Amino acid sequence: MKIGIVGLGLIGGCLGLDFKAAGHTVYGVARREHTCEKALTAEAVDVASTRLATLNGCDVVFVCTPIATIVPMVSELAGVLSPEVIVTDVGSVKAALVEAATAQWPMFVGGHPMSGKSEAGIEAAETGLFQGNSYVITPVETATLKTDKGAITTLETLAKQLGSRLYHCSPEVHDRAVAWISHLPVMVSTSLIQSVINEPDNSVQQLAQALASSGFRDTSRVGGGNPELGLMMAQYNRKEVLRSLKRYQQEIALTIEQIEAEDWPAVRQKLEATKAVRSKFL
Amino acid sequence: MKIGIVGLGLIGGCLGLDFKAAGHTVYGVARREHTCEKALTAEAVDVASTRLATLNGCDVVFVCTPIATIVPMVSELAGVLSPEVIVTDVGSVKAALVEAATAQWPMFVGGHPMSGKSEAGIEAAETGLFQGNSYVITPVETATLKTDKGAITTLETLAKQLGSRLYHCSPEVHDRAVAWISHLPVMVSTSLIQSVINEPDNSVQQLAQALASSGFRDTSRVGGGNPELGLMMAQYNRKEVLRSLKRYQQEIALTIEQIEAEDWPAVRQKLEATKAVRSKFL
Repeated sequence: MKIGIVGLGLIGGCLGLDFKAAGHTVYGVARREHTCEKALTAEAVDVASTRLATLNGCDVVFVCTPIATIVPMVSELAGVLSPEVIVTDVGSVKAALVEAATAQWPMFVGGHPMSGKSEAGIEAAETGLFQGNSYVITPVETATLKTDKGAITTLETLAKQLGSRLYHCSPEVHDRAVAWISHLPVMVSTSLIQSVINEPDNSVQQLAQALASSGFRDTSRVGGGNPELGLMMAQYNRKEVLRSLKRYQQEIALTIEQIEAEDWPAVRQKLEATKAVRSKFL
Repeated sequence: MKIGIVGLGLIGGCLGLDFKAAGHTVYGVARREHTCEKALTAEAVDVASTRLATLNGCDVVFVCTPIATIVPMVSELAGVLSPEVIVTDVGSVKAALVEAATAQWPMFVGGHPMSGKSEAGIEAAETGLFQGNSYVITPVETATLKTDKGAITTLETLAKQLGSRLYHCSPEVHDRAVAWISHLPVMVSTSLIQSVINEPDNSVQQLAQALASSGFRDTSRVGGGNPELGLMMAQYNRKEVLRSLKRYQQEIALTIEQIEAEDWPAVRQKLEATKAVRSKFL
């Protein structure tokens, strides 16, 4: 297949490497000439260009630009591609963009390969990033829009070639699930760090920094991650992030109540329940 | 030196192994004969007994029993030991017990070696568990009680032999600092798991379980730990756990407010601040 990739960052670069390894021809488009050169050097693409028209002969185009630019980019692609070309994206939120993108391009399929690493950019691209990880496909069906079945099948085939585990759900169910397991943890974790650094007693503050070990390290990890990503989650999955944060807030309030009331059986029951259930998520 | 250890679990066993390796003679006491046999087999002690009187000739006795039994054990030891014997503990909370133990035994010094592993019991004991980790010594000074200087010096010498980094502070500062970096993370993390499993929509619940990856895994780790330990923290460090939880609750409320108001500069600023500061804790 001829595969186009718009946006040659970490995810675009990793897709290019894996699709080339699977025998496809990969056409990359980046805004800057310099990024095109780096993608060619990394052998993440066969052809690189700053012009979208380069993607005209592709079978499938992956939009790998930041969330805010996905719908505008689909709109731009609509002026360049022939109507049978499948367009998909890799954005980590879906409801905010899948319907809008499908309205622009009937052959659009929303997708979310759930892989990443702490380094960003084409320089960090590697083969096998998606191997064994989830790839969520989010078709839509409304009164006026319906994701093309053939386009879904093609995306499924490609995602399997990446070695991913495939899931299908609506954009709304996707956004609600990732709010729980990806976006809420970022807010929980950043708030933990923020409340510790607000400790006004300097000797406590310094001792806390000195004594922090694996418990604090793990619980605070995602709160110390890429601020842009955290902001995007809050902006583009606002409704579900707020829903999960408010339920979490109730849980924190309940914990405070139980400890204040010295209701130790309740505290024990909760700790036992969460220990027992956690393995289901791993 | 002759070193006594009461309570031959993970920490008691690890102390025994390291002190034997450092050339000391180690006398262990456990409630059950079977545990004594296991400690001898593991070579964690030179002598093992179920009788506290075995510790009579020791220079220093480490109380390594669960938090709830530390003060009663010091009280029992007071009926057995000669007055010059130094007694210390390894409990993870200090204010609730250091003054009470010192009142029972003037040669008592509170201590907290901040090491552990997920397995419990003498079977999991290994050498070098304390190497490079923090060891907090918590002397008291009140109108009627003052921790013995010589006892502190002896405990320092032994902690250094374990390869630990030494810290000194009051029991209150200790408890406030560990509330932030150890006890609050457990409550934050268990509440995250609990709020996710309260999700009533079954398709969202199942997808969340399937999609959970490293972000959720790390943020939920300590909430899926030993329920007894979590409960002990809440019970014996109740005041500081509540203080940290209430400040954390304010931080969560602020985050909700900012996202509701779409105050993105504030959300970005917080995420940037916590990313920048996190390295101080590691």
